[in-house]
Amino acid sequence: MLTPLQVDVGAIASGVNNVWVLTVTFLIFFMHAGFAMLEAGQVRSKNVANQLTKNMLTWSVGVIMFFLVGQGIANFVGGAGFGESFAYVNGGSDAWISWLFGAVFAMTAATIVSGAVAGRAKLRAYVAYTIVLASVIYPVVVGFTWAGGFLASFGFADFAGGMIVHGMGGIAGLTAAAILGPRMDRYNEDGSVNIIPGHSMTFAVLGTLILCFGWYGFNVGTAATVFAAEGSSIALGAFADTVGRVALTTTLGMAAGAIGASAVSMYKTGKVDTLYVANGMLAGLVGITSNTNAITWVGGIVIGFLAGAQLPIVFEFVEKRLKIDDVCAVFPVHGSAGVLGALLLPIFTVGGPSVGQFVPQFVGVAVIAGWTILATGVVFYVIKALGQARVSPEHEREGLDVSEHGVNTYPEFGRPDLATDGGPTPVRMDGGVTGDSTTTPEEEREDA
Amino acid sequence: MLTPLQVDVGAIASGVNNVWVLTVTFLIFFMHAGFAMLEAGQVRSKNVANQLTKNMLTWSVGVIMFFLVGQGIANFVGGAGFGESFAYVNGGSDAWISWLFGAVFAMTAATIVSGAVAGRAKLRAYVAYTIVLASVIYPVVVGFTWAGGFLASFGFADFAGGMIVHGMGGIAGLTAAAILGPRMDRYNEDGSVNIIPGHSMTFAVLGTLILCFGWYGFNVGTAATVFAAEGSSIALGAFADTVGRVALTTTLGMAAGAIGASAVSMYKTGKVDTLYVANGMLAGLVGITSNTNAITWVGGIVIGFLAGAQLPIVFEFVEKRLKIDDVCAVFPVHGSAGVLGALLLPIFTVGGPSVGQFVPQFVGVAVIAGWTILATGVVFYVIKALGQARVSPEHEREGLDVSEHGVNTYPEFGRPDLATDGGPTPVRMDGGVTGDSTTTPEEEREDA
Amino acid sequence: MLTPLQVDVGAIASGVNNVWVLTVTFLIFFMHAGFAMLEAGQVRSKNVANQLTKNMLTWSVGVIMFFLVGQGIANFVGGAGFGESFAYVNGGSDAWISWLFGAVFAMTAATIVSGAVAGRAKLRAYVAYTIVLASVIYPVVVGFTWAGGFLASFGFADFAGGMIVHGMGGIAGLTAAAILGPRMDRYNEDGSVNIIPGHSMTFAVLGTLILCFGWYGFNVGTAATVFAAEGSSIALGAFADTVGRVALTTTLGMAAGAIGASAVSMYKTGKVDTLYVANGMLAGLVGITSNTNAITWVGGIVIGFLAGAQLPIVFEFVEKRLKIDDVCAVFPVHGSAGVLGALLLPIFTVGGPSVGQFVPQFVGVAVIAGWTILATGVVFYVIKALGQARVSPEHEREGLDVSEHGVNTYPEFGRPDLATDGGPTPVRMDGGVTGDSTTTPEEEREDA
Repeated sequence: MLTPLQVDVGAIASGVNNVWVLTVTFLIFFMHAGFAMLEAGQVRSKNVANQLTKNMLTWSVGVIMFFLVGQGIANFVGGAGFGESFAYVNGGSDAWISWLFGAVFAMTAATIVSGAVAGRAKLRAYVAYTIVLASVIYPVVVGFTWAGGFLASFGFADFAGGMIVHGMGGIAGLTAAAILGPRMDRYNEDGSVNIIPGHSMTFAVLGTLILCFGWYGFNVGTAATVFAAEGSSIALGAFADTVGRVALTTTLGMAAGAIGASAVSMYKTGKVDTLYVANGMLAGLVGITSNTNAITWVGGIVIGFLAGAQLPIVFEFVEKRLKIDDVCAVFPVHGSAGVLGALLLPIFTVGGPSVGQFVPQFVGVAVIAGWTILATGVVFYVIKALGQARVSPEHEREGLDVSEHGVNTYPEFGRPDLATDGGPTPVRMDGGVTGDSTTTPEEEREDA
Repeated sequence: MLTPLQVDVGAIASGVNNVWVLTVTFLIFFMHAGFAMLEAGQVRSKNVANQLTKNMLTWSVGVIMFFLVGQGIANFVGGAGFGESFAYVNGGSDAWISWLFGAVFAMTAATIVSGAVAGRAKLRAYVAYTIVLASVIYPVVVGFTWAGGFLASFGFADFAGGMIVHGMGGIAGLTAAAILGPRMDRYNEDGSVNIIPGHSMTFAVLGTLILCFGWYGFNVGTAATVFAAEGSSIALGAFADTVGRVALTTTLGMAAGAIGASAVSMYKTGKVDTLYVANGMLAGLVGITSNTNAITWVGGIVIGFLAGAQLPIVFEFVEKRLKIDDVCAVFPVHGSAGVLGALLLPIFTVGGPSVGQFVPQFVGVAVIAGWTILATGVVFYVIKALGQARVSPEHEREGLDVSEHGVNTYPEFGRPDLATDGGPTPVRMDGGVTGDSTTTPEEEREDA
Repeated sequence: MLTPLQVDVGAIASGVNNVWVLTVTFLIFFMHAGFAMLEAGQVRSKNVANQLTKNMLTWSVGVIMFFLVGQGIANFVGGAGFGESFAYVNGGSDAWISWLFGAVFAMTAATIVSGAVAGRAKLRAYVAYTIVLASVIYPVVVGFTWAGGFLASFGFADFAGGMIVHGMGGIAGLTAAAILGPRMDRYNEDGSVNIIPGHSMTFAVLGTLILCFGWYGFNVGTAATVFAAEGSSIALGAFADTVGRVALTTTLGMAAGAIGASAVSMYKTGKVDTLYVANGMLAGLVGITSNTNAITWVGGIVIGFLAGAQLPIVFEFVEKRLKIDDVCAVFPVHGSAGVLGALLLPIFTVGGPSVGQFVPQFVGVAVIAGWTILATGVVFYVIKALGQARVSPEHEREGLDVSEHGVNTYPEFGRPDLATDGGPTPVRMDGGVTGDSTTTPEEEREDA
């Protein structure tokens, strides 16, 4: 029956907008599985469970802190009054959806750090830092920018968090890794480098592809307002103009990142390193994330290619010149690629280069980097001063899975002589089952 | 061109509602990948392919039975006439979408059981039980509740299946595991316990995170009606009021579950067991699933925490006191957490505790548990009486991958002396390729 | 406030349609993770990184080519003028979304081929072929059909690409595998077959389940137009009538495919081969993909079952009679199942068999198969003539991970005597880190 439609136009807009925002929020949440696999694949088998546990606790501890504290700090730093800043806590359905949409970005920033400090940070050190990051460090960055603070006023542009989320996370990771120091045996006395390969390329690539999937939520989903209602009329919001551009440049940037990293890998070694291709896709995505709504598709290809191409170069620079042991390459993937994307934005803007945008971009990058280094540095120096930053050399050698979690990730596999560096073979494990077993693992195996 | 909109308002509502329902249905379907990985990671490498096969056949056999029989039984038990009950079979587009949305919940209940009976149940026993579960056992529970039966009339509340789906599945699993008996060598003659760790913590955690992702579909998606059309007006349905609350409490419950399990693990052993953290996230989600729409966010945190905290305790109780070999901990994760969530609902309802709700919740839990134990018990006792419940001790020792499926999950890895408990090294396999190969695997390897 | 709604009805339609199309596009993109895992699991551990790299480069190189060239070729072959054909390149938001929706289908076709040529194709050969496939071969098929070319005029029906995407990909894979020749030691001098099992059933099944998840996007998402706007009225588009049928028949076809493959496996060997169940689910999905919108649910079950049942039979025929080494069974899964589904469509159409549809279906299948074999054959013969098709026997024995990528997928696992066929133990690797390390892996391990 066709009749003039009687409707609260706000209801139509709210319903469709929430369907979209929730869908992309779920995709972004799924990026935690991507980070878990990417990082687990890049660490040794003796440290896998530690990496997985950190990933799950990042989300679990972080999201509660971001609800109780973090979002309010962001609002407050962004200029809202105190009561207003925390009103979302009891704000009802729409407020909670908006909060959750912000929370999955916050947790992405938090989880990046764990890849840099793999293999030697104490679990309690990492969790303590995550609490501060989710409560204060990241929220202050959001306060300066998306929540309306001084960088926003100054015109700093970062559409989906290429700098605010990824750049921040990558810089925090590098800072933390520098303070912790490298894993044992990572560098020789003469300063030369030992390579410590990850235990599974397959998990690393799986993680990469999960991240790429979730990234569509991250970038395209940030074009969040499908419909805008005004009085009795309803129309397409910003969604209409930007969503296709974001989908296109995100796709091209990701692809070009893989090609850029492949090309440099091929140039340097004559071979296409699988892990560079994977991390190149991610670096391409990071590079495009701040500018994806604002640039031409040619710009998307160029920025993605450069973000991928810088990866092997920056990785080596960090490893060999800075001598920082950034285990999962989070700085070249998230940090420098995020900075690059934010700085290149003005060159490729739709309608031609936007000269006036350079200064806000440069200032924004500098402020976010400075704050992140400062805050992260203070937290990790304090933890270090308390003697809680690193596990003991014995535990590091044995692996953090056993020492911190009491488990063995692969009890039936591996060459324990390699995997545990001469530790007991096989190590004690309890596989999710506590305590008073009457058999040793060896006996178990004889029995089983 | 702005003109008064001529529209069948039902069309608008139907289109948007179906977009949402289909999206979340796909997410819930993806939980099968989560269960497959979670369970595969928790079994020994000699039983992985068996676990994976059961997972795929649960879906494949179960969903056809639920289409041909199960949904109709649910409708009939819920009070519809016989013809009406089965009308969905030829009901057209909207009816089929609704059916599929129900089917993914049904298959979740079904697949939970496979984790409890891992490592010794015959494939045919498991498949036979799945047919009965999908056709009758689960549909009767739905008939009593969501389809309008006597528990619904009595006021039993279970929003997204914390008890109806997860509690039912966890209790069914425990019942089946009890009847089958433990894996060989799980218990010693003096009653002490041998730990049999799973083969891959990484796959287990991957499965956990996939499940968490799909769970957003499970819970938030149950707020299914975006728009309600009435006459010529259209407005937001229940979606508007509940969807944000569900998204928030689901998030907080999941997070608090991981923290609860971590805390108890830390208290008992001084270490944070990775598998407890993972299963704690899931137990938190199970705990929140029945009440997620009705409770305060404080309640979400408390229920999630308790659901996580009870996990290590109930797991040990089942293992050491009940002496039931629930391989993948499905009872503490799905069963007891589901019961707990349903019973705690009245305490944390929005607007204060709802005393009158206690009795319906208690009765609902008791009826669902009783029916599930009874029906599952009958099926497995019959299968056992027919001598079809367990594989032979030789097959169990050799591993079900070889004996039931003729494959070796990891032909290039493992320490066969451990993995196959002294069986032929390496075992015969054919990797998806049948029959008449002229070489043995040993020859292959020499050749290849 | 209820007032007559003032709205550009096109805006409502566009907003909701784009939300849906983007969501399913992301799901289809995620199928790349599924293919990566499925294929990685089915190859030997020495070739895993090669398979993963090919997967990532298929997407990265292919999608850029399909943007710059492929979509335009498709439009042009479909009958559009030259300028019009390439207008999407600067077409703005809606055009780019449509392009991306088409691109994820194109990349699915491309990635199928990599499974057939695993373990011996040079990376550069594969990438070169991918460029041609994404630029010309697949676009021509789309030009003939979906873009409005002569097969469309002739009445050839293929709803979501069972033949256009999967059949084409499977036939291309078979052609390429035939020209490349089998892996070394795959066949003995007397013509008998050696089985070379994949390295991880778990990854293969994970990939299968990811593909099933994405397939809902593939099939159900092809019912793409939620709303159609006409003048000032808006109504449900084709979505309303077909979306539920597609969701139902896709579900039943997938399930019946697993059952069909299981039944044949059981009949032939007495055991239910896990990999046949997995590939049977996929073959069922391929079988249903062309006809899912047009057939009864009974037809969905029958076609899915037959598509699954033919898998073990066709696999053996290809292996033993044709002597083609189709490593990941892409022809029986995508090729023959796709052909079967397209040819069976007329038998099960809603409202009874559609006799007149047989000829268009047969012609469509023949044209697509003929073009694919011809074009793929020319490309691979040229590459072969240039001596660039296969890696050297030494590299093949050593594994492509080392020779083409300089990495070791599992440096801490495996039994290198098996995995690398007597090569150096363990092989040189650099795990994402280039070059001038001063230690050998052996030294690393002693140090670490």
